[in-house]
Amino acid sequence: MITPAKQRFAIGVDLGGTKVASAIADAEGHILSKHTFPTGGEDGAEAVMDRIKAGIRQLLEDVDASPAQLIGIGVGSPGPLDTRRGVVVFAPNLPFRNVPVTDILQQEFHVPVFLENDANAAGLGEARLGAGQGRRHVVYITVSTGIGGGIIIDGRIYRGAHDFAGEIGHMTIEPGGPVCGCGNRGCLEAVASGTAMARDGRSMMIAGRTPILAQLVEQDPEKVNAETVAQAAQQGDEGCRELVERTGYYLGLGVANVANLLDPEMIIIGGGVAKMGEPLFARVRQVLSQRALAAVASAVEVVPAALGGDAGVIGAVQVALGQDREPAAVATR
Amino acid sequence: MITPAKQRFAIGVDLGGTKVASAIADAEGHILSKHTFPTGGEDGAEAVMDRIKAGIRQLLEDVDASPAQLIGIGVGSPGPLDTRRGVVVFAPNLPFRNVPVTDILQQEFHVPVFLENDANAAGLGEARLGAGQGRRHVVYITVSTGIGGGIIIDGRIYRGAHDFAGEIGHMTIEPGGPVCGCGNRGCLEAVASGTAMARDGRSMMIAGRTPILAQLVEQDPEKVNAETVAQAAQQGDEGCRELVERTGYYLGLGVANVANLLDPEMIIIGGGVAKMGEPLFARVRQVLSQRALAAVASAVEVVPAALGGDAGVIGAVQVALGQDREPAAVATR
Repeated sequence: MITPAKQRFAIGVDLGGTKVASAIADAEGHILSKHTFPTGGEDGAEAVMDRIKAGIRQLLEDVDASPAQLIGIGVGSPGPLDTRRGVVVFAPNLPFRNVPVTDILQQEFHVPVFLENDANAAGLGEARLGAGQGRRHVVYITVSTGIGGGIIIDGRIYRGAHDFAGEIGHMTIEPGGPVCGCGNRGCLEAVASGTAMARDGRSMMIAGRTPILAQLVEQDPEKVNAETVAQAAQQGDEGCRELVERTGYYLGLGVANVANLLDPEMIIIGGGVAKMGEPLFARVRQVLSQRALAAVASAVEVVPAALGGDAGVIGAVQVALGQDREPAAVATR
Repeated sequence: MITPAKQRFAIGVDLGGTKVASAIADAEGHILSKHTFPTGGEDGAEAVMDRIKAGIRQLLEDVDASPAQLIGIGVGSPGPLDTRRGVVVFAPNLPFRNVPVTDILQQEFHVPVFLENDANAAGLGEARLGAGQGRRHVVYITVSTGIGGGIIIDGRIYRGAHDFAGEIGHMTIEPGGPVCGCGNRGCLEAVASGTAMARDGRSMMIAGRTPILAQLVEQDPEKVNAETVAQAAQQGDEGCRELVERTGYYLGLGVANVANLLDPEMIIIGGGVAKMGEPLFARVRQVLSQRALAAVASAVEVVPAALGGDAGVIGAVQVALGQDREPAAVATR
């Protein structure tokens, strides 16, 4: 592929526990080439960073460009992060402890590098180029093993005062509910994540309440996960249907609280659990209409994510383009 | 008081169910004169608007200024409102149904008039000139008969996509809790407002669990309100202490959810119930530290409001100064 010498590009990297997705885009954010490779976290942080560097070089080669043609590199990563210093402070499922990701990539490619929380990046991707196109205020909720969130206000990521905003998964939804990984009780993540569905599916199976699920996983509790629960529900397993319904109920409570507080135009739900589709979304919308103020509930759209697994890398490209940063006029006020 | 002909002023009006507070300030927002008069809602909306007009004329007279010297008039009102059209759509405790407040005042004084949700205006007042001075991201929660909220992001009111943002009082806190005025169950307002305290204090008194409260109100359940419950708690009434503790618990849950979602620098609690002071705030902070992510909880300050009953009118002046509107550069993006 031959490109004019002055054409400019942006690279997005979506760093995950099992795989890394990276893509190069033109200055308008259109993806030109994309690769996915295993993270290989067991080899340590340096090896992972080396793989990311090699991936970036590959992408540049794909479009026959030099690093000098890059507007920037955006990296989405699980956190907690220090986005201002560009450091991954800690990341569950990754061997990263205080890794200065932006410094490492800046020293290699000599271009601006921006680090962003992975749910924020995916939320930005969905808001700009996915389900939320054309909306100003969008909240993205990703429901998979955990629950994360990204708040997009005026088309930009809202990070809060200390980069912690959007922790929707740790909103207390059921004060006396099950203990969450964070130590609190009844967090949204503890009652509505894929992990919660698997936990409850397992105990219901052991209690003999999910015969179709039991058959599906050949009586092996280890094989019970959100996917098999959803599958059994679809095949008519009453216990699993109850579980899907309960997940929708709790997600609906979370969505209603977010809507009452932030009044976004749209709430986008992504992640593996969202793939259950209508049975789940119908329940979420029903609970929203019962639990949020009538005007709020009728004004907000609740929709599935549109970009699937690409939301993170597409959002990381947007982060790279720097369009997400505050304009100087606002930042200096 | 003699003022140079070219001096400019701003007027703020805080419209409440029982009284109206209005003030005139200089172009920097310093209050020069302030009046409070009964709303007299029983006389109808027109009479109330006439009283507001007379109040504005009085304020102009106080500083010897003409309407032409006004930068603007800001009006804080209970809602729902349509702030873009400047209409009070409906207001509980006020005889206002689709009253075009800004049109009425613009026709009278020929200056820009801005209508704002009362909790938003008070939040802006507290954030700019009260407890939140110097902070960018502040959430204000007012706890009195109801619970309202104002979200200040980057020093400006965040209104959401349809002017509904900040409905903190209708966040579901206890899904199976008591029915709220809005029809939902277990809203923050249904479990932690002054009305909730009075309701629970009354039933505890009838059950014989609040002897000091019973004495205070001379056994009259009608006299039980948040104030008498707080007073009895202070005098050692165990039942009432439990109630104050419970109010702090639920407020703490609400505060933790807001902190996890928005990561503000400060959460300011105002309104009559906040006057209970430390016994309440200590419990709120304790629950916050248990319920929010550790990093979030330790980063946010939770403090009592500093402007008392003046927050609304001081905020309305800020609204009048138009400093709260989005700068054109941002609005046109």
